[in-house]
Amino acid sequence: MTRRISDIDVSSAALSHRNESLPQLHSVGQPKKESILKEVGHTIKETFFPDDPLRSFKDQPASKRFLLGLQALFPIFDWGRQYNLSKFKSDLIAGMTIASLCIPQDIAYAKLANLPPQYGLYSSFVPPLIYAFMGSSRDIAIGPVAVVSLLLGSLLQEEFDPENDAHNYLRLAFTATFFAGITQATLGFFRLGFLVDFLSHAATVGFMAGAAITIGLQQLKGLLGIKKFTKNTDIVSVMHSVFGQVHHGVCPTAHYVGMTLLLQGKKNKKLFWIPAIGPLTSVILATLIVYITRADKKGVQIVKHIEKGINPPSLHQIFFAGPHVIKGFRIGAIAGIIGLTEAVAIGRTFAALKDYPLDGNKEMLSLGTMNIVGSMTSCYVATGSFSRSAVNYMAGCQTAVSNIVMSMIVLLTLEFITPLFKYLPNAILAAIIIAAVVNLVDFEAMILIWKIDKFDFIACMGAFFGVVFISVEIGLLIAVCISFAKILLQVTRPRVALLGNLPGTTIYRNVQQYPAATRVPGVLTVRVDSSIYFSNSNYVKDRILRWLADEEEANSKSNLPRIQYLIIDMSPVIDIDTSGIHALEDLVKSLQKRDVQLLLANPGPVVVTKLYDSRFAQVVGQDKIFLTVADAVRACTRKSQEEA
Amino acid sequence: MTRRISDIDVSSAALSHRNESLPQLHSVGQPKKESILKEVGHTIKETFFPDDPLRSFKDQPASKRFLLGLQALFPIFDWGRQYNLSKFKSDLIAGMTIASLCIPQDIAYAKLANLPPQYGLYSSFVPPLIYAFMGSSRDIAIGPVAVVSLLLGSLLQEEFDPENDAHNYLRLAFTATFFAGITQATLGFFRLGFLVDFLSHAATVGFMAGAAITIGLQQLKGLLGIKKFTKNTDIVSVMHSVFGQVHHGVCPTAHYVGMTLLLQGKKNKKLFWIPAIGPLTSVILATLIVYITRADKKGVQIVKHIEKGINPPSLHQIFFAGPHVIKGFRIGAIAGIIGLTEAVAIGRTFAALKDYPLDGNKEMLSLGTMNIVGSMTSCYVATGSFSRSAVNYMAGCQTAVSNIVMSMIVLLTLEFITPLFKYLPNAILAAIIIAAVVNLVDFEAMILIWKIDKFDFIACMGAFFGVVFISVEIGLLIAVCISFAKILLQVTRPRVALLGNLPGTTIYRNVQQYPAATRVPGVLTVRVDSSIYFSNSNYVKDRILRWLADEEEANSKSNLPRIQYLIIDMSPVIDIDTSGIHALEDLVKSLQKRDVQLLLANPGPVVVTKLYDSRFAQVVGQDKIFLTVADAVRACTRKSQEEA
Repeated sequence: MTRRISDIDVSSAALSHRNESLPQLHSVGQPKKESILKEVGHTIKETFFPDDPLRSFKDQPASKRFLLGLQALFPIFDWGRQYNLSKFKSDLIAGMTIASLCIPQDIAYAKLANLPPQYGLYSSFVPPLIYAFMGSSRDIAIGPVAVVSLLLGSLLQEEFDPENDAHNYLRLAFTATFFAGITQATLGFFRLGFLVDFLSHAATVGFMAGAAITIGLQQLKGLLGIKKFTKNTDIVSVMHSVFGQVHHGVCPTAHYVGMTLLLQGKKNKKLFWIPAIGPLTSVILATLIVYITRADKKGVQIVKHIEKGINPPSLHQIFFAGPHVIKGFRIGAIAGIIGLTEAVAIGRTFAALKDYPLDGNKEMLSLGTMNIVGSMTSCYVATGSFSRSAVNYMAGCQTAVSNIVMSMIVLLTLEFITPLFKYLPNAILAAIIIAAVVNLVDFEAMILIWKIDKFDFIACMGAFFGVVFISVEIGLLIAVCISFAKILLQVTRPRVALLGNLPGTTIYRNVQQYPAATRVPGVLTVRVDSSIYFSNSNYVKDRILRWLADEEEANSKSNLPRIQYLIIDMSPVIDIDTSGIHALEDLVKSLQKRDVQLLLANPGPVVVTKLYDSRFAQVVGQDKIFLTVADAVRACTRKSQEEA
Repeated sequence: MTRRISDIDVSSAALSHRNESLPQLHSVGQPKKESILKEVGHTIKETFFPDDPLRSFKDQPASKRFLLGLQALFPIFDWGRQYNLSKFKSDLIAGMTIASLCIPQDIAYAKLANLPPQYGLYSSFVPPLIYAFMGSSRDIAIGPVAVVSLLLGSLLQEEFDPENDAHNYLRLAFTATFFAGITQATLGFFRLGFLVDFLSHAATVGFMAGAAITIGLQQLKGLLGIKKFTKNTDIVSVMHSVFGQVHHGVCPTAHYVGMTLLLQGKKNKKLFWIPAIGPLTSVILATLIVYITRADKKGVQIVKHIEKGINPPSLHQIFFAGPHVIKGFRIGAIAGIIGLTEAVAIGRTFAALKDYPLDGNKEMLSLGTMNIVGSMTSCYVATGSFSRSAVNYMAGCQTAVSNIVMSMIVLLTLEFITPLFKYLPNAILAAIIIAAVVNLVDFEAMILIWKIDKFDFIACMGAFFGVVFISVEIGLLIAVCISFAKILLQVTRPRVALLGNLPGTTIYRNVQQYPAATRVPGVLTVRVDSSIYFSNSNYVKDRILRWLADEEEANSKSNLPRIQYLIIDMSPVIDIDTSGIHALEDLVKSLQKRDVQLLLANPGPVVVTKLYDSRFAQVVGQDKIFLTVADAVRACTRKSQEEA
């Protein structure tokens, strides 16, 4: 029984696909066995070095190699050589534009992180400078961002009170920034950047929207002038704070300016400079109004004090020993990874738009170095900002020089202008934050996700509601878990498709997708749409047997010939493990009892090797493995005709 | 540029695969949109009810449905109607054989679980009876097994001392057994049986071998008569105990019998009854010798006391409240899942050998019920035993009646014979355990795993060394993590294959597997060997672009025409998520900058729907999606010829 069609001339079966004029033959290829070392080496290379980073170093003299190495570490030495005045003009304009946007944002975001306002400006001075030398994105704008500031603020205040224990709070902030940098640089150095991909697009969209809502709600404190406000970020606590308090001392002007800003927040590509300089204009106007009317004496809350001068050193403030190191590491690692996700997403978006290469791992190394240095110069975690990078791109930036320009303007601001921000009303800062984060709620993306993939949408909503109702970390965790559950579900319950022949061709396709495809009498052709692993091997086997039972039942009802052959199209089966081989062996045993012959079509290189190594190919019969489904079907029908 | 080949007559391109006589056309099928409810329903059905358990209930009157439901819950009412004397004869012989094997094993395994010897026998009386009514496997032999006993023993003694706090220890054992049953029944009831598949074959092999070594080493205590022995199960502690103690009081006879048993342990299919009755013979002989020579007075350790009579009720001893409930649940859940894995693996093996259907979820429900009832009748966790099931099968069992026969013999033993086991030397029990577990070290399977899949081998060894050097739970955890890491690695770094045309055919295959396959000038054909998800979308995009760069470099060196077309064979791409769509969009942007046209071949039903939903198909051009790679290549070459 087992050798039913072994006597067929397989070479003639393989004819089906050939033009009759060409007598050449093709059997299923069995790749040469690679040594284990080579195999493992290949896996490691594709996992950690898919971009072959050392390729340009090949066949180069030592001096050239040193130069290439320097350029790899500091891309500015590469692109700097082609830098010219026309590029500088573009970068100057772009740099000035993002500076006018970043100064008010910095002050506002520092408040989100519960830090004094000058620390926001510090973080827009040192990190962009370092990034300009090391980074490879031409469009990213570096500095503090809303989501990371919120995250840092909410995680840090769990450890120290930002008002009563401001000194330790600040020290822990620098410690967290240091470890954020270490985390980022380590991921980049060990080429583990692909881990950032584990935060899917859908999860990021949901997370950002949730964070935006959370941040926006917290601004009600500044906007409504509420003094006692909850420290929790979840919507229930925040709403409780808002409605449990009597409004007092809201500056009507500031309120009005804030609302205008809010409405202005909508994107308009041609008039991009209006929202870009809007915040600065509002800041100047509002500060002037408060200064002239002395509204602060009437209860309007103002910034009050902002330190003058550039970043003081802060290396000595970092906790390098004691119980706070672990806390700083935990907070830093979370903030660092969120920062990375944002920066890498921005970098990739613009690199694809302008088609230049971007090495994710190298980017992480730059971002990490920049935060490590930042933590020693009074900066908190900086990364790429969505809103400012978009403005930078639209203002026509050419290289990272726009970041240097911005950094210089921030330097001048710190040295000369900051004391003037004393009268800046808090409500304006709240409005600036709301205007910035409102764009993070990307309804279009959410609708698209809903349309494309319902499971992605669940991950997106999981992140969103997790952030809004519980906390930022839990939201993230939910999204990552749902995303992985989806992959595992796909692997655990792969689709098994029933194939039919497209009339007039030798092509076999899924009958559900191609209703025109017709089934071959006496032959059941199925395709397993996944690699066969321990997690699905039993399902695949049972699914195929169930299909066989269904078919036999239907055939006996309609007096069709009984199924004699089962063909499995292995094209999508990229890999198989020992559990998979065992399931196939069990399948063969069951088929033998039912007098059904198993044939395999188009197994890939890895699968063929494993089928032979496990001696399964020999058990089934090597002549039962075909190049295409059509060849296998031809072998079956030929045998049936011979028997008839 | 984007509409380079849009003006080609696609219908003529699709001709390539058709016999010229048949003028029928096939375009890429776009399946009808299913409603969300239907889609979700399908996913739920395939995840939880892949075996369509209610199919036989369709179109049946209520009375018939009740009967079918009863038969589904108690299969004995189904197969019992065809039961006859000839089957009973076979079952009687098989039942007597496994009883003779199980009685000494039960006493020995109870010691592994640090329980008085009678509890092993209790667990071979009630659970097999219940299983016989509810279970659907015809070959499994139910009772205590070595690995679960060891696991239970080592987990329970972390909570209570089995000697000084024997009462609470016993209570926790029943609590754990109760929750093991609850876990098993719940998994079965909610059709979550597929979770058991997450313990891969390779992990199970490694785990079993590790557990066998651990159990074997612990028997050195009994075999060498060591009194102070470590409670830890790791090899370092055990070896320390063995070599740190002076031997005293080893009964030479028992030692000799034990060693004979050990050597006897090898499988021999024709003489299977020798190892099957060996243990009982040794037990009887050794007990007699000790009784006659009164060797126990000379220092040989004996069982001393064993309770007479059948299982006392133990419902009142289960902790249903208080702090021990959680502990019992944790221990029970672990033991229950290990027990399930063993039972389901045995059930499947023999079901495949005899080709009868086995519903994994229903099995879990039976095993769970049996352990719940067991926990109330002084039994500890019982499951299917590898060694006894194999003996049962070889002895010719026909149905679960052999379990009833065994259960009855155990009942008789409990009522009449147990007091005689008083003089049974401990060394014999140790030898019985070693003889039983030595077969759990499956070197052949390990070698096969090494041959087939190196990553599986790592998981296998991870489980093995984890169990041997750390603990049973850690070993399991290691194996599960490695197995999942493998799946995720596969999904994160899928293979992207370069395709070539098999000369004289319209078939395109991986050039690495088929060195005869030739490349088409000006066209780069790649195949993505995985679904495109967030975890791999960027890698896939970068990998394809790198290949393109490599090709262009090679072509410019050898003066070949530049690459104008990129064809992606989507056959193995079963699914795509929003991140995947975005990666494809980025790819198109990069390709447009390089003046390369993208064509897609053979996307599956899910992917086609998503390409259209996301409007990606419209962006690329609907006429750029082909039924086969050959069609796409033909469209490219035709266009190139027209241009020339």
